[in-house]
Amino acid sequence: MRARGGRVAPPRRHEAENAPVGEFDLLARLRERLSPPAGQLLLGAGDDAAISVPEGATATSVDALVDGVHFRREWTPPAAIGHKALAAALSDLAAMGAAPGEAYVVLGVPPDLDEDGCLELLGGAERVARETGTQLAGGDVTRSPVLWVSVTVVGHERGPERLVTRAGAGPGDLLVLSGELGGAAAGLLLLEEPALPADLENAVAGALRRRQLEPWPRLAEGRELARSARAMIDISDGLAADAAHLAAASGVRLEIDAAALPVAEGVATVAAAAGRDPLELAAAGGEDYELLAALPAGSPAAEGFTIVGTVAEGEGAEVRLPGGRSLAAPGFDQLR
Amino acid sequence: MRARGGRVAPPRRHEAENAPVGEFDLLARLRERLSPPAGQLLLGAGDDAAISVPEGATATSVDALVDGVHFRREWTPPAAIGHKALAAALSDLAAMGAAPGEAYVVLGVPPDLDEDGCLELLGGAERVARETGTQLAGGDVTRSPVLWVSVTVVGHERGPERLVTRAGAGPGDLLVLSGELGGAAAGLLLLEEPALPADLENAVAGALRRRQLEPWPRLAEGRELARSARAMIDISDGLAADAAHLAAASGVRLEIDAAALPVAEGVATVAAAAGRDPLELAAAGGEDYELLAALPAGSPAAEGFTIVGTVAEGEGAEVRLPGGRSLAAPGFDQLR
Repeated sequence: MRARGGRVAPPRRHEAENAPVGEFDLLARLRERLSPPAGQLLLGAGDDAAISVPEGATATSVDALVDGVHFRREWTPPAAIGHKALAAALSDLAAMGAAPGEAYVVLGVPPDLDEDGCLELLGGAERVARETGTQLAGGDVTRSPVLWVSVTVVGHERGPERLVTRAGAGPGDLLVLSGELGGAAAGLLLLEEPALPADLENAVAGALRRRQLEPWPRLAEGRELARSARAMIDISDGLAADAAHLAAASGVRLEIDAAALPVAEGVATVAAAAGRDPLELAAAGGEDYELLAALPAGSPAAEGFTIVGTVAEGEGAEVRLPGGRSLAAPGFDQLR
Repeated sequence: MRARGGRVAPPRRHEAENAPVGEFDLLARLRERLSPPAGQLLLGAGDDAAISVPEGATATSVDALVDGVHFRREWTPPAAIGHKALAAALSDLAAMGAAPGEAYVVLGVPPDLDEDGCLELLGGAERVARETGTQLAGGDVTRSPVLWVSVTVVGHERGPERLVTRAGAGPGDLLVLSGELGGAAAGLLLLEEPALPADLENAVAGALRRRQLEPWPRLAEGRELARSARAMIDISDGLAADAAHLAAASGVRLEIDAAALPVAEGVATVAAAAGRDPLELAAAGGEDYELLAALPAGSPAAEGFTIVGTVAEGEGAEVRLPGGRSLAAPGFDQLR
């Protein structure tokens, strides 16, 4: 960064050489949008570090989205990118049963994303932060040849024993799922081929696209499940894959009945138009950001949750499809 | 991610479409290198989130390096990239006087960086972590068209009142500096034009290049200065610019005497060969990651620290060069 107003030209530096005019103004404008300190957060953005005084246990997770890998700018408005980046990170906290605390957002800004685009992107994250009670406590902006967003989230609980990991499921446990599956995968198909299903209502199609572009972290559901769950994971890689992660961490086998899976409205129509099996979209589509939890046998599945299978001895995860087929995930940890 | 071994082809997804073979193996190998839980860290990498039980106050900072912006792969070995990414992030904790705690590393991996390169990069961060007592508590890996590294660091102190911000300097305070300046800027000149100075000893040139490629966070110095400092900042953007940041946060004016600046060995030789002023390299070169602190008047400058100026009423920062020239930084916060 150049010392503006300097009477002697400062030496060249990587940063200074390539810095577009206004980069620091942008950072200033972004920081204006960050949360003022409150609660456990004593000092937010603008100093060398944010300061907080956490009570109890913290859960910390990092998540990153890259253009062309996790989203495509051609069909993703900047606000949706910011939304999804924070929502995906918060989904990991939901899967621990943690209450959302602070988020730190790092933005790699390409030459063709202007200041308004950056502010829109942050606005999307801001909306998720506001609606989930997350404080945007800090961040950084850097130039980059490609757009990427990296988010670190910190969640809180009274004690570490109240946080739910992937390990802890035992044979005989029930598997319960929040919400519905397949929507994000169907939404992606609609974004890739907008003309696809002739017989899909606009409102339903819109809901499916939003499911892909603006997923919602199941924080309240995670807090509720954490009261009794022995293990929990969020469905980001797809039910079969994430079930395998939980199975590996717990040293058990997960058996899921695809017929029991709650499939989002419109998924069947999109699947038919695309020549796909709706249960495949539900069982392996990913990015639905629902929660899968193992509860002790005999637990009542509360409203809004669906019993989808059981935990057995063994390893791996299997989603049994109708007609004797199955979607099997391997027994080793794929370490999402 | 594909459910390997699945008998039914899973639907396409962004992730799955582009995933190179072995991405998850890489993540597994990287995670093997992360810290096992110890101390306040109860659960490290591999679950949805890391779990810790922090005592007292935490300082959290994020920092990112992007190829072509903060480093150039053509002259930066992967280990140095990992080293610099963590060191630069830890430097922010040093500037707060915090003890290093946990680090979370997110890696954007381009197609031409293979698994060994990724492991080398992490190895560089690992070395810094080991030597500074930082725990690599988590991370993520994603494909990316360009190499980037984003690091979140968490530091600890007994109470928030013991952490030193940029605000708090008052008129009459002394300005002290750790270490020497100009080395990183001279090192960059040597990397850009390796043949530059004919009369520079190899060992000195090597030290300057390392100063640029593998800076070291002044954590111990930061802890020592924090005992009496009223305000502190690390020199990443250049002394003049960072002094202006501190001035803006404290609502004061910083006056620095360039003749008092400790200039690293070899900087004068490199500057002469490049037709540059060595004091410019020292005062505005940046990336030295030394610490600038405001101490109450009358404080003795401990060994290893140099008194470089004073705090006055007013705004902005000025570095007075010999011959009546000066390098002035503006009075508004450039919000590094």
